[in-house]
Amino acid sequence: MLLNGPSPMQVAIDSAWEFQGLTFPNPAVGCTVVDASGKIVSVGVHEKAGEPHAEVHALQMAFSIMKDDSTVLALSNSSAIHDFLTENHDNIFTDCTLYVTLEPCSHHGKTPSCALLIKELGIKKVVVAHQDPNAEAAGGIEILKSSGCEVTIADECTQRANDLLKPFTTWQQKPYVTFKWAQRLDGTIDGGTISCHTSRVHVHAMRDVSDLIVIGGETVREDRPTLDARLVDGKVCDVLIYSRQKEFDKSIPLFSVEGRNVYIESSLDRIQDYKNILIEGGPAMFEATKNITDSYLCFVVPKSGGTIRFTNTKDDFRILHSQTSGSDLMMWMELKK
Amino acid sequence: MLLNGPSPMQVAIDSAWEFQGLTFPNPAVGCTVVDASGKIVSVGVHEKAGEPHAEVHALQMAFSIMKDDSTVLALSNSSAIHDFLTENHDNIFTDCTLYVTLEPCSHHGKTPSCALLIKELGIKKVVVAHQDPNAEAAGGIEILKSSGCEVTIADECTQRANDLLKPFTTWQQKPYVTFKWAQRLDGTIDGGTISCHTSRVHVHAMRDVSDLIVIGGETVREDRPTLDARLVDGKVCDVLIYSRQKEFDKSIPLFSVEGRNVYIESSLDRIQDYKNILIEGGPAMFEATKNITDSYLCFVVPKSGGTIRFTNTKDDFRILHSQTSGSDLMMWMELKK
Repeated sequence: MLLNGPSPMQVAIDSAWEFQGLTFPNPAVGCTVVDASGKIVSVGVHEKAGEPHAEVHALQMAFSIMKDDSTVLALSNSSAIHDFLTENHDNIFTDCTLYVTLEPCSHHGKTPSCALLIKELGIKKVVVAHQDPNAEAAGGIEILKSSGCEVTIADECTQRANDLLKPFTTWQQKPYVTFKWAQRLDGTIDGGTISCHTSRVHVHAMRDVSDLIVIGGETVREDRPTLDARLVDGKVCDVLIYSRQKEFDKSIPLFSVEGRNVYIESSLDRIQDYKNILIEGGPAMFEATKNITDSYLCFVVPKSGGTIRFTNTKDDFRILHSQTSGSDLMMWMELKK
Repeated sequence: MLLNGPSPMQVAIDSAWEFQGLTFPNPAVGCTVVDASGKIVSVGVHEKAGEPHAEVHALQMAFSIMKDDSTVLALSNSSAIHDFLTENHDNIFTDCTLYVTLEPCSHHGKTPSCALLIKELGIKKVVVAHQDPNAEAAGGIEILKSSGCEVTIADECTQRANDLLKPFTTWQQKPYVTFKWAQRLDGTIDGGTISCHTSRVHVHAMRDVSDLIVIGGETVREDRPTLDARLVDGKVCDVLIYSRQKEFDKSIPLFSVEGRNVYIESSLDRIQDYKNILIEGGPAMFEATKNITDSYLCFVVPKSGGTIRFTNTKDDFRILHSQTSGSDLMMWMELKK
């Protein structure tokens, strides 16, 4: 097989997917810095709202490599990195090309504008996989073009860039609902915690940025979960227990988490009051939420031997992204219409 | 997240895994060519015995890119590519580094020696993830060193390089047995062909290089398979039907494939007479062959809704490699001891 080296945009997209579900209310974004020779110097991703954007991380790393100076790596604040790079770049980026999965932001929000940073660093070529659907942040391409930067749209990556950006484009209009479950390779889900530590940390990080967790009454009674984000020292979110029976043993840990509203309801309407919703459910919840779920995140644990199978209905998914997660696999999917 | 660009050795290993199971009796090998700037110029893999080695493919592609001349891409014969590169290289590779998952071969077998080619091209740096366990082909590192080439062992990739090379190291001593199955995400396997075309082509390519397919009597009766390699226009191999009942409807297509021996036996001993064995079975075969199986290849089809589940025993796998296969996922695994 004959191949060129890895494609900078594919690397950016794959890297961004690792933080899918963790960046709310921001999009998951990846960025690669490619030097004049075509070498991928660095890769950056946006990990969490308030932290540096993908472009800033990628340029920070590129600076430390190209200048062989790790000073900049000590900075974690986006404004500080912006300032450092603006003051110290010495035009080393002039011949670099930036590959970004999303149009660089134009506005100064929690972090300074990436488009302005790129302009100030004198970067002359930017390849973008998707334009910004958020009116407030859009306009980055215009800023770049007006500063003489050549901006290209990477048409060959449109499908994957769309898939990556789907939560963010959805948030512009309505809540985004992710259904998460962990199962063994044989489809079984019973017997307590089955996924590996890395997978559980990922789920806690998702809870940390969710505003509502939805769970079935049956699961609450059987698993007696806490539904917090303690593995990432994260924040607490509200819980909707979807159940016709309203009586629960209040010593189940989730009821004792401070600062949380717990709703026990036989309707899912409350989801519409929230924006980033994580459903953690079993087969019954899967069926009940099919019409409102945007994407599915399945942790496949390479084991077999349980008794209760996740689902027995006839469903057909499309895989959006898959990767290892510790000793498990994780698969982002959507139901085919 | 701050990252360097993709690691040349990881890219070589990942690319090689795509052809795992297809290179018998050769190892699956990957190679990247990195230029003086550190850019991954090209990636090559060994696809099939008799075809060019990974190094040759990678250097062929690198030549066409670095010289901006696609003439060399028209060549498919390994000796012809060797000759072309030796005559035309103009020392363009002198400052390149080669990353190879396996020590370059020293001997002239079906194709000329890669170590000699590297020497003739004047490449000064080679990074190797694994030494050649085959006495006949080993010695490549010595050839390179004696020509003044700096050879490094990539210690950080040892586990993944070992996993990749496992079939080949096994063949030095005994048969290598792969158990393959396709299942839906919910673990079900019934209802005819469930995997996508790409996955089926991969299985046919594996059959093409297997010398024995092992299958259970039950599966033969129910699926009435042909067990040939028609999707890749491949060769026919022998079949062992593992069954206590010796009576079969001989109109089942597998019995009519010309040039094949079909054995119907209640023992698996015959496997020892072969070298590259593919077991295509259901739950009963999985149990019966646990002690003789080296690795498991599972195609996970992102669907649910079948009735018969693949396995109900308690098993614990380690994932060796996973990747998408068309619209499916494929997972190489081994059972944890």
